[in-house]
Amino acid sequence: MPPTPAAPASISAFGPARATVAGTPLSADEARKIDAYWRACNYLALGMTYLKANPLLKEPLKPEHIKDRLLGHWGASPGLAFCYIHLNRAIKAHDLDVVFMAGPGHGAPGVLGPCYLEGSYSEVYPDCSEDEAGLLQFFRQFSFPGGIGSHCTPETPGSIHEGGELGYVLSHACGAAFDNPDLIVAAVAGDGESETGPLATSWHINKFLNPIRDGAVLPILHLNGYKINNPTIWARVPHDEIEAFFRGTGWTPYFVEGSDPATMHQAMAATIDKCVAEIRAAQKQARTSGQAFRPRWPMIVLRTPKGWTSPGESGGHKLEGSWRSHQVPMADVKKDKGRLKQLEDWLRAYKPEELFDDKGRFSPEIKALSPVGTRRIGSNPHANGGLLKKALLMPDFRQYGVKVEKPGTTEAENCKPLGVFLRDVMKANMQHFRVFGPDENTSNKLQAVYEVSKKLWLEEYFPEDADGTELAVDGRVIEMLSEHTLEGMFEGYVLTGRHGFFSTYEAFAHVIGSMFNQHAKWLTICNHLSWRAKVPSVNLLITSTVWRQDHNGFTHQDPGFLDLVVNKSAAVTRIYLPPDVNSLLSVADHCLRSENYFNVIVSDKQNHLQYLSMDDAIVHCTKGVGIWAKASTDQGHEPDVVMASAGDIPTKEALAAVDLLRQEFPDLKLRFVNVVDLFKLQPDTEHPHGLSDKDFDSLFTTDKPVIFAFHGYPWLIHRLAYRRKNHPNLHVRGYKEKGNINTPLELAIQNQLDRFTLAMDVIDRVPRLKIAGAHAKEKFRNEQIACVNYSHEHGVDKPDAAGWKWPY
Amino acid sequence: MPPTPAAPASISAFGPARATVAGTPLSADEARKIDAYWRACNYLALGMTYLKANPLLKEPLKPEHIKDRLLGHWGASPGLAFCYIHLNRAIKAHDLDVVFMAGPGHGAPGVLGPCYLEGSYSEVYPDCSEDEAGLLQFFRQFSFPGGIGSHCTPETPGSIHEGGELGYVLSHACGAAFDNPDLIVAAVAGDGESETGPLATSWHINKFLNPIRDGAVLPILHLNGYKINNPTIWARVPHDEIEAFFRGTGWTPYFVEGSDPATMHQAMAATIDKCVAEIRAAQKQARTSGQAFRPRWPMIVLRTPKGWTSPGESGGHKLEGSWRSHQVPMADVKKDKGRLKQLEDWLRAYKPEELFDDKGRFSPEIKALSPVGTRRIGSNPHANGGLLKKALLMPDFRQYGVKVEKPGTTEAENCKPLGVFLRDVMKANMQHFRVFGPDENTSNKLQAVYEVSKKLWLEEYFPEDADGTELAVDGRVIEMLSEHTLEGMFEGYVLTGRHGFFSTYEAFAHVIGSMFNQHAKWLTICNHLSWRAKVPSVNLLITSTVWRQDHNGFTHQDPGFLDLVVNKSAAVTRIYLPPDVNSLLSVADHCLRSENYFNVIVSDKQNHLQYLSMDDAIVHCTKGVGIWAKASTDQGHEPDVVMASAGDIPTKEALAAVDLLRQEFPDLKLRFVNVVDLFKLQPDTEHPHGLSDKDFDSLFTTDKPVIFAFHGYPWLIHRLAYRRKNHPNLHVRGYKEKGNINTPLELAIQNQLDRFTLAMDVIDRVPRLKIAGAHAKEKFRNEQIACVNYSHEHGVDKPDAAGWKWPY
Repeated sequence: MPPTPAAPASISAFGPARATVAGTPLSADEARKIDAYWRACNYLALGMTYLKANPLLKEPLKPEHIKDRLLGHWGASPGLAFCYIHLNRAIKAHDLDVVFMAGPGHGAPGVLGPCYLEGSYSEVYPDCSEDEAGLLQFFRQFSFPGGIGSHCTPETPGSIHEGGELGYVLSHACGAAFDNPDLIVAAVAGDGESETGPLATSWHINKFLNPIRDGAVLPILHLNGYKINNPTIWARVPHDEIEAFFRGTGWTPYFVEGSDPATMHQAMAATIDKCVAEIRAAQKQARTSGQAFRPRWPMIVLRTPKGWTSPGESGGHKLEGSWRSHQVPMADVKKDKGRLKQLEDWLRAYKPEELFDDKGRFSPEIKALSPVGTRRIGSNPHANGGLLKKALLMPDFRQYGVKVEKPGTTEAENCKPLGVFLRDVMKANMQHFRVFGPDENTSNKLQAVYEVSKKLWLEEYFPEDADGTELAVDGRVIEMLSEHTLEGMFEGYVLTGRHGFFSTYEAFAHVIGSMFNQHAKWLTICNHLSWRAKVPSVNLLITSTVWRQDHNGFTHQDPGFLDLVVNKSAAVTRIYLPPDVNSLLSVADHCLRSENYFNVIVSDKQNHLQYLSMDDAIVHCTKGVGIWAKASTDQGHEPDVVMASAGDIPTKEALAAVDLLRQEFPDLKLRFVNVVDLFKLQPDTEHPHGLSDKDFDSLFTTDKPVIFAFHGYPWLIHRLAYRRKNHPNLHVRGYKEKGNINTPLELAIQNQLDRFTLAMDVIDRVPRLKIAGAHAKEKFRNEQIACVNYSHEHGVDKPDAAGWKWPY
Repeated sequence: MPPTPAAPASISAFGPARATVAGTPLSADEARKIDAYWRACNYLALGMTYLKANPLLKEPLKPEHIKDRLLGHWGASPGLAFCYIHLNRAIKAHDLDVVFMAGPGHGAPGVLGPCYLEGSYSEVYPDCSEDEAGLLQFFRQFSFPGGIGSHCTPETPGSIHEGGELGYVLSHACGAAFDNPDLIVAAVAGDGESETGPLATSWHINKFLNPIRDGAVLPILHLNGYKINNPTIWARVPHDEIEAFFRGTGWTPYFVEGSDPATMHQAMAATIDKCVAEIRAAQKQARTSGQAFRPRWPMIVLRTPKGWTSPGESGGHKLEGSWRSHQVPMADVKKDKGRLKQLEDWLRAYKPEELFDDKGRFSPEIKALSPVGTRRIGSNPHANGGLLKKALLMPDFRQYGVKVEKPGTTEAENCKPLGVFLRDVMKANMQHFRVFGPDENTSNKLQAVYEVSKKLWLEEYFPEDADGTELAVDGRVIEMLSEHTLEGMFEGYVLTGRHGFFSTYEAFAHVIGSMFNQHAKWLTICNHLSWRAKVPSVNLLITSTVWRQDHNGFTHQDPGFLDLVVNKSAAVTRIYLPPDVNSLLSVADHCLRSENYFNVIVSDKQNHLQYLSMDDAIVHCTKGVGIWAKASTDQGHEPDVVMASAGDIPTKEALAAVDLLRQEFPDLKLRFVNVVDLFKLQPDTEHPHGLSDKDFDSLFTTDKPVIFAFHGYPWLIHRLAYRRKNHPNLHVRGYKEKGNINTPLELAIQNQLDRFTLAMDVIDRVPRLKIAGAHAKEKFRNEQIACVNYSHEHGVDKPDAAGWKWPY
């Protein structure tokens, strides 16, 4: 039977409101005022885009009033402002606490306008005062050098979601709603943004919002119709597909569609009232009964024309409801008199003279629709989360360490004690600490956290869940196989002042490389905004690392995330490679206490040799880099060679190389340096953690060969240390994309990070060993071959090599 | 009204089949045989996981038959093999051409088994012959050093989708189906994978498959129930939500659920028959009528227990239908006799003695169910796409250039002529060339392609679409605001032997950083497989670059994608930074003709100065790096300083710096070097494009200062060139995360890539200018300040600076 394609129902955004929810809750007076408020928003959005003078249109519009370079995006603004002011109404009507997030790209004018009108903007930026001069400054600074951008950048009061890169508005919203039971996070998702993968899967946030403990997210899908030049997918598929999609992702969709302001105001007001009632009812049901469940939370599909309230056409082209209203709709107003007149008519159609008095003050009658104080969206303290931040109650990390009596002789799973530590951090901070992981907290050996709080699960339970799935309706651990969603939730959580920890497989940290970039940029700008209180750091544990992905193979071997991290501002980036349990605990404690950073910790989860007692670890991690005296043979002398390492496996291999060398060359003066804090390698002029040249030289010498065994791609060390005097003698080994299915030692050998290669590197570079070492080199090479042969025969590493321990 | 949470219907995967499609199409004999085939697959999957000897269980199972290191993932395998062999049946019954993709992670055993049984595997790997010795080798090599991995790696015949990183199976499938009208790409998506963002949005592929011209994708969502330790979201939500979700994304879902093999075989056979009939009917309707439309394509939801056919329990824990069957279900068989016995019973339950003769040959009666020749999934030539590849018919790129009579004096939009070139490449190769872009082909100035083929659009059309949206039901340009989906489609397209071009905003190339990593790794392995024919390269144009994102702001400024590219194998990575139109055309022509590379071209789309005539551009791009004599003043002499550049804007600023210096210091011997092919900077021992040290030294000298104006993060140049003799004198300027809303020149100044800084850098580094240049330095610094002040006052760059041209 052939499928009969349904003829798609026409889905115009124009006309009187068509809405799921009936009702006209606004009185005539309310309707008039809310429309006036909206006209004021739209007037401001247009003013920002075009005007550098004559902000109240007191005189006829002239070319010299127009900005020289027209930048900005008008298209999404009217719809965003429409959402904002209807949320204002609901805040007042229902005494709500609302954070607003604008997902659509370049939507700032639609947010800045109401933020200014409610008074929040002028309080933060007194130069943009609530008068004519301030209004002019507010217009001029928009998309202007030294001013503000066209996204909801950190400079935007009330924003914790910039929207520069699309896809994260729902996961940010969810993170903000966690553990804020009274909060409603209204998140507008653009229909362009909705085509991205991260947004598409983040409709699943409703599976992670506990109606007792968490606040609510109210998504508003804004079917604006167009991206830069194209229609959006969601704006053109049949109505029943949209409805089915949202029911399928577990939401109850309410449609508000049309262009006629009067009926659209009534429909939006009625729909938001309905949504708020449903949210509160679900929360009440859960909170009264004590039974958490997943409600079919409400969401809104708002279909309006792109560039809503633009002229219908301009220059012979459709404008309102067309992609042509996406950016600056009339680019030639400075030169074309007719077009300038059209712009003036358009501006005057909002009736600025009714909205602002002749001093530029917003009409008190209309302004009275704004919420007051911290209930204003632009002044909501959750959107300046550092203000609400509570310091973590920290257990003493020293209590979680392992005993190390003789360095390099006992093994432990590096991440496991960290899991116990995180368990107790969780226990002491049950309202404001979360653990995130893409189905990998157990795999990554952090499962001790489940002893105090399990994984949040609101779906059906099976009897067998009692045996090891570690699920609970009130769990505080969030696991979903979407690094994007987790990172977004985590960012939303810290930006609202709370704390957390995220662990992931090293290779798949790249999935959120782009999100790291954006969050680092956000923090970088925040550092220049005195009014933004510092927020807790994002703490990312990169584990299941390359050197123990021999069994998962080539696709799982990628230590390149660090190469992204080092490109971002030194003020916000930190990288740590603790070599063992105690150093990992020390680093984790430090990171959890820090603020406004993106901390990256690299530590493998499997069994590894332990080197540092807790006291030694604290000293070593505090310095970030240091000589390991017990592994060195240069006491009191200038060394012949420096062996350096960063990372757990590289440290083991480097120490094993030292052992080989000591056996062969008892007189060799060898210095062993371990690096935990990677930015120590950079000059102090480049990174606040950087060593001074003097300190660097005192560790690495100025003229002796340095063999550096590095966890990641070897070139990263050169990139950090190229300015150092001894850089020409720096020889780095690391991962070089040589991998397949193999054993750990074979993988190291293939990439020349193994003990034999490192020892041979020393022989090659210490002049007096060049000839004297020929025999040893041959021996090492033979042993290397023997190791590979053994692994190919037995499928495991040669026991004596794999079981190597520090013998001194 | 409070929402009433629907009590979720119990959704067990166990019991007799429950299916949307009724019918028992298999005769008793067919049913018996297909079940035998499946038992053979499952036996092989288990054998791969455990056995290193006794492959036919001719003797009782002993510890020494068990591998020393048990690696692999059993859980997804039975379901994958179930799909594979039912597709085999459909291939034979309906004469289908099927490519199979296994999305679930670590699913290889479920694919390798049937691939071996049908004979494909042994043809590619004669050591894994169809006898006992071959079977043993087939078992031993799995997840074994020097052997093969647990994903469908490039070593897997019939695979073009590894599944190492999750999320891309549907976009890969869609790319493979493009322009292969008779092909059906059966794509199994795991329920874990389905939580990823890239997979979630890729259900939209049905909006891009033209039923006349393209083949079909048959998605099979495998509700296996569990990830590593967790239930999956989709496996536990109510049935009606799953159904609604797929109807909402435009598919017709058919459910096949249960665990009872006999009824499940009937249900799966009936369902696949139904799906094939619907696919063919939709295609027929479209092809007969000539009217392309979007059918509600069928898809299958297959719910079976994780580790289907495992023992129900082991060691007191549920095994079949539990996360405990995800990896190696019984890890202690080598030591625990009882467990070894349980494994033996489990293996024998598949009745290997009925399936294989005592020489290890698969029963001919059962093997006869396999398709033959290239209809076998493991031998389908589309999955070794290089075999089917047609060379592109290439128009002469020289015809698309701009005339450059005097270098550095005229401007052109660099990407626009490329669009015209791509238009004609498209025109000459309408069956096997595609252009991809996330709603940005017009924004990126490539819109000329629409003259021969528009954007594919199968949804509703509005009257205004006639005015500029450039949509068509038969368009060959694919635009969707998901870099993930586009990159996945493109990869699927090239892996099946076709060609294409992808352009994207520079900052958001990071969205697919992880996909780049994985594709580069795939290609790297393919280079070691002689049986894999080379496939066309992925060609990625990175445009809307950092230096012209002054107006979009900090979030849009990120040139770091290159830092990822350089980490991957030199055999498959290429980076080009053509400075102008003609060099861009030359590079693009080269890339389009290349094979097995990931080519990255960096070129901004806006108006830029033109430097090279077409002849000069060809010479320059062929060399990849060279001295620009007209910009140099060192003719016949050793220079005082080398000014180098890579990228369009850096080249302009570097030339303007040369101009400043020439005015101030007419005697200065300055050499200007431009780099197009970035890997020229690396030693030839590291990259096949690398310059020899001799050639490098002859360009960059061994002891003179080199000021390098680079497009990206400056440290990348050090990372590439640190081994060069003159590296200590190399001083690189590039992007340093200093950005906000500004003007182009101000952005350059903030990051010290501007002409004034570069000129001052020269003064600082040429000894004889250190004192003589003090006055000039002050002048440059003042001019720099004047430029910033101008832009802050006017919002545009100072006209004389912005309009700078090469004056000589």
